[in-house]
Amino acid sequence: MGDGKMAFSRGEYDRRLALARAGMAARGFDALFIEDPSNMAWLTGYDGWSFYVHQGVILTHAGEPLWWGRAMDANGARRTAWIGEGSLRPYGDAFVQSSERHPMQHLAGVLKEIGLEHARIGVEMENYYFSAKAYVTLLEELPNAQILDATALVNWQRAVKSDEELAFMRKAARISEKIVDGVFERAEPGLKKNELVADIYRDALRGYHDDWGDYPAIVPMVPSGPDASAPHLTWNGEALREGEATFFEIAGVYRRYHVPFCRTVFLGEMPEEMRLAADALVEGLEAGLEAARAGNRACDIANALGSVLEKAGIDRGARCGYPIGLSYPPDWGERTISLRAEDETVLEPGMTFHFMPGLWMDGWGIEITEPILIRESGKADCFCDRPRGVWVKD
Amino acid sequence: MGDGKMAFSRGEYDRRLALARAGMAARGFDALFIEDPSNMAWLTGYDGWSFYVHQGVILTHAGEPLWWGRAMDANGARRTAWIGEGSLRPYGDAFVQSSERHPMQHLAGVLKEIGLEHARIGVEMENYYFSAKAYVTLLEELPNAQILDATALVNWQRAVKSDEELAFMRKAARISEKIVDGVFERAEPGLKKNELVADIYRDALRGYHDDWGDYPAIVPMVPSGPDASAPHLTWNGEALREGEATFFEIAGVYRRYHVPFCRTVFLGEMPEEMRLAADALVEGLEAGLEAARAGNRACDIANALGSVLEKAGIDRGARCGYPIGLSYPPDWGERTISLRAEDETVLEPGMTFHFMPGLWMDGWGIEITEPILIRESGKADCFCDRPRGVWVKD
Repeated sequence: MGDGKMAFSRGEYDRRLALARAGMAARGFDALFIEDPSNMAWLTGYDGWSFYVHQGVILTHAGEPLWWGRAMDANGARRTAWIGEGSLRPYGDAFVQSSERHPMQHLAGVLKEIGLEHARIGVEMENYYFSAKAYVTLLEELPNAQILDATALVNWQRAVKSDEELAFMRKAARISEKIVDGVFERAEPGLKKNELVADIYRDALRGYHDDWGDYPAIVPMVPSGPDASAPHLTWNGEALREGEATFFEIAGVYRRYHVPFCRTVFLGEMPEEMRLAADALVEGLEAGLEAARAGNRACDIANALGSVLEKAGIDRGARCGYPIGLSYPPDWGERTISLRAEDETVLEPGMTFHFMPGLWMDGWGIEITEPILIRESGKADCFCDRPRGVWVKD
Repeated sequence: MGDGKMAFSRGEYDRRLALARAGMAARGFDALFIEDPSNMAWLTGYDGWSFYVHQGVILTHAGEPLWWGRAMDANGARRTAWIGEGSLRPYGDAFVQSSERHPMQHLAGVLKEIGLEHARIGVEMENYYFSAKAYVTLLEELPNAQILDATALVNWQRAVKSDEELAFMRKAARISEKIVDGVFERAEPGLKKNELVADIYRDALRGYHDDWGDYPAIVPMVPSGPDASAPHLTWNGEALREGEATFFEIAGVYRRYHVPFCRTVFLGEMPEEMRLAADALVEGLEAGLEAARAGNRACDIANALGSVLEKAGIDRGARCGYPIGLSYPPDWGERTISLRAEDETVLEPGMTFHFMPGLWMDGWGIEITEPILIRESGKADCFCDRPRGVWVKD
């Protein structure tokens, strides 16, 4: 890795390794096998769309993390990760999507080679990329090891962002603002939604000044009218219509760091029911931001929002946010803390969340959200600076 | 689902159900639990970016498939799937990304309710979305059932495309051609790669005439110069440079149907080494297309390519293609057949592949590929119609 493409300082990676190793030590693990691409990138800098085949990082208590993956992707590791040539462990293409062989057979050999045949090894049991078959195969291949659940162990170390990470997120936030500004400028009855999303992508990837845009871990979700009663529809070729709300759930991304941000555009005159809900939502957001302070708990944000919405007769029945930062598909959340009544995680300065209380109602929906940073003192900072509310365009 | 958004005829879905059930019967399964979003969509039409939480389709030998997922996504199922209200099985938000509860606890309850407590149930052990934890939890919750490996059972039924599916892929192919044409037109020294990709997305999503573009399951991969020695790098903010090859691995997508297509652009005068390799590659592609006939085997394509490349002194060391069609991230392949020497799958009319022999060399790389359709007789049809070779721009 000699060509200056490394995203972060070596000191930043040392900080991360120290945190991950402290987490390992607390659980008594000799090693971690990390298949989550976000965790892989956080530890080593490795970046590439190769996570559709098995790959991972092996972390022990000493030395560099090892990158393990498909042979053709070793060149990608050489070009993006800070680790040295001796830390690469490629496997042959015959292991790829084969019904006769499984890459975990190769991984088991690597783990044995480095002395982990009898070790306590943490794996990410609840993760998109460590499959059920991977787990079963690893158990078979390493009968003398203890294969234990280390789900989200590394994710938790990512919760408090460093200054270097926050600088990336602030760049991403400028892109998020640019995207929603472009949406409001262009939205009008008759505009096809796929054309609108084409320009969202164009704005997102062109980026902000010299800061180039990266791809979001979730594609834009832009449902209109009754489709907006469903939170996760993407787009189609239909036109925007007068008398309908369309929400825009997007994220600006700078070098894999996400700042999700949602605003809703209404074309025409907003119905009273929606206006009242939007007012309550904005008041609830403000209450939640007041509660989003170091020393308070995740549930305090959810409860502050919830009591305002309850007065307006709205029961969302879902969490209202999650941590954000470095991410790869299919999720831009960190899958640790949830902003909901049962989550008593204490908020710390440097934590970052998407405070995301979407309203998916019967026949319509709106999203007005804030990506936030927990500060040393005072209420949370919002990464983006745009008016809260449904943006009405006559 | 009454608003005419259904992608395919009811007869097409009946065909698919019959195929999946025949596959189940052959393996003696009472039911399948399908978490792969491509398989879910293929069976029910369900479409949404909700696969970052657990969801699935339960298929038995009678009645409609059941959609099971997060409560907030039931509205998405109502709006995109052909199944009726009585076939929805939503679970509460408290199961989402919780360390105390797992959605498979809820699923087990549903399976018991429909009489599958002692059944032989097939699950997708090797899949991005059925995690190791999901498997272990399901085993615990259903001690009297047999939870068996049905990896790729549905994927295999997708291999031969119907006429309705081929019509979608032909629309996608027009978008693929439009993308590479735009790339060649715009590529020039100094153009930043993120700006080039911004326009790739714009072309892709605007689509072709009235056929709107959908998102690809893999983002564009556009590495230049030495970066092109790695197959899966995406993009950055660097400029295209004279004297470098950049390959463009993209896919036009129409309603989740993909036609991946790759071309390489060289700015300036192509070095002799690259020219010779490109000539061999084009000759190898032509040999492979000749071998891509119904009745031949997958390996015949790989071997035909391989013997041409071998004469040119090139050993790729990797498979040269995979089946394509309906797909969701993180892969646009179907993960069944591989075009490689060991795969003796007999080719059938209606099978579709990305014939993809990328060359990732020491310090440079090129990709020239063809998405193909196996015909009743004669050599394969190419979905796209663009000159084969490295496209040189002085």
